[in-house]
Amino acid sequence: MSRALPQVEPDPTLPSRVTVYEVGPRDGLQNESTVVPAEVKAEFVRRLAAAGLGTVETTSFVDPRWVPQLADAEEVLGLLGPDGVGARRPVLVPNVRGLDRALAAGVGAVAVFGSATETFARRNLNRNVEESLGMFAPVVERARAEGLWVRGYVSMCFGDPWEGPVPVEQVVGVCRRLLDLGIDQLSLGDTIGVATTGHVHRLLEALAAAGVGPDRLGVHFHDTYGQALANTVAALRDGVTVVDASTGGLGGCPYAKSATGNLATEDLVWLLDGAGVETGVDLDALVATSAWMAEHLGRPSPSRVVRALSGG
Amino acid sequence: MSRALPQVEPDPTLPSRVTVYEVGPRDGLQNESTVVPAEVKAEFVRRLAAAGLGTVETTSFVDPRWVPQLADAEEVLGLLGPDGVGARRPVLVPNVRGLDRALAAGVGAVAVFGSATETFARRNLNRNVEESLGMFAPVVERARAEGLWVRGYVSMCFGDPWEGPVPVEQVVGVCRRLLDLGIDQLSLGDTIGVATTGHVHRLLEALAAAGVGPDRLGVHFHDTYGQALANTVAALRDGVTVVDASTGGLGGCPYAKSATGNLATEDLVWLLDGAGVETGVDLDALVATSAWMAEHLGRPSPSRVVRALSGG
Repeated sequence: MSRALPQVEPDPTLPSRVTVYEVGPRDGLQNESTVVPAEVKAEFVRRLAAAGLGTVETTSFVDPRWVPQLADAEEVLGLLGPDGVGARRPVLVPNVRGLDRALAAGVGAVAVFGSATETFARRNLNRNVEESLGMFAPVVERARAEGLWVRGYVSMCFGDPWEGPVPVEQVVGVCRRLLDLGIDQLSLGDTIGVATTGHVHRLLEALAAAGVGPDRLGVHFHDTYGQALANTVAALRDGVTVVDASTGGLGGCPYAKSATGNLATEDLVWLLDGAGVETGVDLDALVATSAWMAEHLGRPSPSRVVRALSGG
Repeated sequence: MSRALPQVEPDPTLPSRVTVYEVGPRDGLQNESTVVPAEVKAEFVRRLAAAGLGTVETTSFVDPRWVPQLADAEEVLGLLGPDGVGARRPVLVPNVRGLDRALAAGVGAVAVFGSATETFARRNLNRNVEESLGMFAPVVERARAEGLWVRGYVSMCFGDPWEGPVPVEQVVGVCRRLLDLGIDQLSLGDTIGVATTGHVHRLLEALAAAGVGPDRLGVHFHDTYGQALANTVAALRDGVTVVDASTGGLGGCPYAKSATGNLATEDLVWLLDGAGVETGVDLDALVATSAWMAEHLGRPSPSRVVRALSGG
């Protein structure tokens, strides 16, 4: 860092190294109303990688009818070439058809998107939780047979907009089932941003008791209620070392009702830089990338670090 | 709470009860460009108290030439009557002249505003740190002689926009000197929002080693870099139980560039509600109050909880 601040003061409760799992190009852009051209998406991934983000989820092979923003998955990967399809460039695949497309594009890692609650499974996947596991099973089996790394998202882990509270045991059950399919890493999603620190601790404790240690987990917090960073620190204290974040906080409009944006990568890296935790990320390069992307989206970033450092 | 979320899950690292020290009417409104009429200010304090905020800093007796937004301190206290001048309704007093005005208004508690750095002392108080302590001494002495509770703000504890890093030992030294004057409680201010969790821990540890335990301290974080809530949790874990916050995230600091708003009281209470920590505050009443104040200010609240819950 060339900046004098934040002042580096180690936090003894944090791990010495954290893997930032960047979801901006996929989870971020799929939730933006502005559709970004494939060349801009590819350049975004290149800039993120150049800023030191080792793991970048690049795109999605969900049916373009549902996510038109990412209908150009093949084109983006084609533009990226070999750098876009490594073991640390996962793509989202909803089902076997999506996996076929991903394999044809030569990807090295995939992610499936599950739900901890029945209502969200029905609304998002058009099937119940059990049926969704049945849908994922052949995807995971074939992906692993092809030598791919496989991630499983678990959404609504901390609350559901239709069901309200979500029992911790229910989340643990879904997580166990997903891991039993052969998934390498789970991402615990607070899809509507309602988690608080004690809840994070309780879920991680229950998962550990069920044999799911923090080494199999990532956390994915949304900042709807301003809790994303505090929840991330709670998870890091309990041994998690993989944190999902979206550069510039992409995926949520700062002016809309219940701004459902992801944790901004910059806000996370500011904290980790201050605590002396290694991430490999160059914060200033990241802020410049967000400023560049904000021009394409025609609106400022909701990230406080981006606004403070870029004079926005 | 009538809402189903957040789901209450105790956080064993947090205290069972937290005192929210509400600074909206003073620190918040003094930094807003819109000047609010005295009747609205008084009604704001009444609504905050009705929402369960026990401690509310109501106004400032700083020279109106410097803080015209709060030139009506006497009028506001007059409108509030006996409920506006108790031991838990502190007012800011910069010097003996301000204390005279506060005493004439019948207040029961006062706060002085010091600095951990020389540059900010000169810019904000027009004197160096030593001279500012000399200015505070007779204020604290007389206030205590009159039976008032006295608070001391310490600004720039975690970084200074002109000096950059601020040595922890320097902050500890200023804190000790202020307490030696007879001050009851110090508020550690991150005036430009640059603190991170390890820095908070390190300062609290150093203060404890110097005989300043968390029972003498409050924390005052700004959300300039999105770190306020994470830093608050770090302080609570180290035994602090008094947290400054501003309803709706009102305010900032006019003398420090890029010092945007205070931690929003609603974002803090959301976290504490979720963790089962007692505050006495009714979050929904507070959100309604912020929505009401936002109309007077002509702009939406920056608090994420306010936006999510009020549909802003």
